[in-house]
Amino acid sequence: MRAFQITAPNKFGLTEVPEPPLAAGECRVRVRLAGICRTDLELAKGYMDFTGIPGHEFVGTVASGPERLLGRRVVGEINAACGQCDDCRRGLERHCAQRTVLGIYKRPGAFAETLTLPAENLLAVPDEVSDEDAVFTEPLAAALEILEQVPVPPGEHALVIGDGKLGLLIAQVLALHGCRVTLLGRHERKLALAKRWGVLTRVAGANDAADLGKVPLVVEATGSPAGFRTALSAVRTRGTIVLKSTYAPSELPALDAAKVVVDEITLVGSRCGRFAPALRLLALGKVDVRALIDQRVPFAEAERGFDLAARKGALKVLLQFGL
Amino acid sequence: MRAFQITAPNKFGLTEVPEPPLAAGECRVRVRLAGICRTDLELAKGYMDFTGIPGHEFVGTVASGPERLLGRRVVGEINAACGQCDDCRRGLERHCAQRTVLGIYKRPGAFAETLTLPAENLLAVPDEVSDEDAVFTEPLAAALEILEQVPVPPGEHALVIGDGKLGLLIAQVLALHGCRVTLLGRHERKLALAKRWGVLTRVAGANDAADLGKVPLVVEATGSPAGFRTALSAVRTRGTIVLKSTYAPSELPALDAAKVVVDEITLVGSRCGRFAPALRLLALGKVDVRALIDQRVPFAEAERGFDLAARKGALKVLLQFGL
Repeated sequence: MRAFQITAPNKFGLTEVPEPPLAAGECRVRVRLAGICRTDLELAKGYMDFTGIPGHEFVGTVASGPERLLGRRVVGEINAACGQCDDCRRGLERHCAQRTVLGIYKRPGAFAETLTLPAENLLAVPDEVSDEDAVFTEPLAAALEILEQVPVPPGEHALVIGDGKLGLLIAQVLALHGCRVTLLGRHERKLALAKRWGVLTRVAGANDAADLGKVPLVVEATGSPAGFRTALSAVRTRGTIVLKSTYAPSELPALDAAKVVVDEITLVGSRCGRFAPALRLLALGKVDVRALIDQRVPFAEAERGFDLAARKGALKVLLQFGL
Repeated sequence: MRAFQITAPNKFGLTEVPEPPLAAGECRVRVRLAGICRTDLELAKGYMDFTGIPGHEFVGTVASGPERLLGRRVVGEINAACGQCDDCRRGLERHCAQRTVLGIYKRPGAFAETLTLPAENLLAVPDEVSDEDAVFTEPLAAALEILEQVPVPPGEHALVIGDGKLGLLIAQVLALHGCRVTLLGRHERKLALAKRWGVLTRVAGANDAADLGKVPLVVEATGSPAGFRTALSAVRTRGTIVLKSTYAPSELPALDAAKVVVDEITLVGSRCGRFAPALRLLALGKVDVRALIDQRVPFAEAERGFDLAARKGALKVLLQFGL
């Protein structure tokens, strides 16, 4: 099959590879549409010393697997777990220490004509959800994860720092939850999108937190030290900062321990979320993900897709298969 | 009045000073017994550029104030708040940005014959609670604060790092809450106390977290980078680390952002707590604070008391007034 493969930091391209072997209980999925995520760009640069096939945002068709899934359009939870350990038993398969992660860790990813995942990872996509919507299930689930981890009273003021694709989804999710949301970003085009969704916006600059008032919930979605500093200065006493960027290859800046302790700040690391509620929201048509699509590129031009996705200010670049 | 005064880093001693002026709504309290806290030792070394009278753990008798309190034995919440701001209105007077803090910030403390506090800060001590018990209300409230901030399922495993006075109180409070508690410390004498309270103990050494299993709740009560590193390696995925040491003059070590985000760790800064539940627990006689008393020293020998409190491994040193 054709696959987009990373062989070393900054060395990648399309190549012919064997289809990944099918383990017991796994399905083979023919990829229809895949999204390029910031994590993929970081993997291509050498994050986690990654080599292999990246890609974890996809919608596809089941080519082999159990009857109930065969031929169905599906999306798939990206963490393939052991099903036996403590984490799995408490319903946190996505934290299983034995897990492989599609396109990220020990499992070939979605930037290839086919991929494999355990049958229990796959969710059938309802007919009313298009491929273009379904391909956003994974990042939308990651945005919803915040509400699984942190009790957020609707009506509360939330500040989202970073107007990237994930930041834009988080702003929407929190607004749907009933929050008053402010999005702090650097791109007029993206902030204009957020405004359409009823989100307050402001352009990042000096003294970002100066006149915001003190905010009970801050989501840091830039992964940069500057974003983290803004979060610390914007959060109110007893407030919560959610750290929402898995790609950050560097360390957080040193924490001002006195500030965190005296003001009783809570910091919450947040990663992947459950797919079912994300798919449900997409079926309801309440989350505008189409507006996040920047470019559609045939898979045969995947390298160009990576270049497009890496441009400053780019939104979602999709790789279209079967063209 | 006689007072123990800090005039510069490492310069302190007993001296004669005027009684602090009495503002509207404030009571004057004649101090009976006061406890020396690690924070006091740090203030004497120059923490927060402190000068003045330290001391915030006390029990005293109301010498002037409203009828209902006059002549009563009292303890006092140490944060004197404005009563008007957002924090005060949501019941978090101890976070009021306008607050003064007894013996810590802009309010002369308890290492003096008298102190002043607003009447609403004072709680009458029930007759069945001795001075020796009551003087622990403040640190016990700080230990209980953890349960106000973090939902802790009884029965859960909790690791407390640090067998100082606060660590010992935290271990007791979590054990009373129904947790299985492990205390990690450096002092056989202190760990032996914890064992009496049904707490599992282990002596700190190399690979502290290696065979503990992964712990859902870790309380870091050493304020040291080593303690923080142990906390990070002991906490389980989706677990919580409570940072419980206000005295730490330095910064936390740089955080491994990938670890915090990928494992979805929560960090919670924790400081002062409410006095009422602490006093109630003391009245029930369920918390063993007497075992934490190391030395009682007449206030006239306060400097010797500070020396005793600063010895490695010291427990609580109390300053006894009116002797």
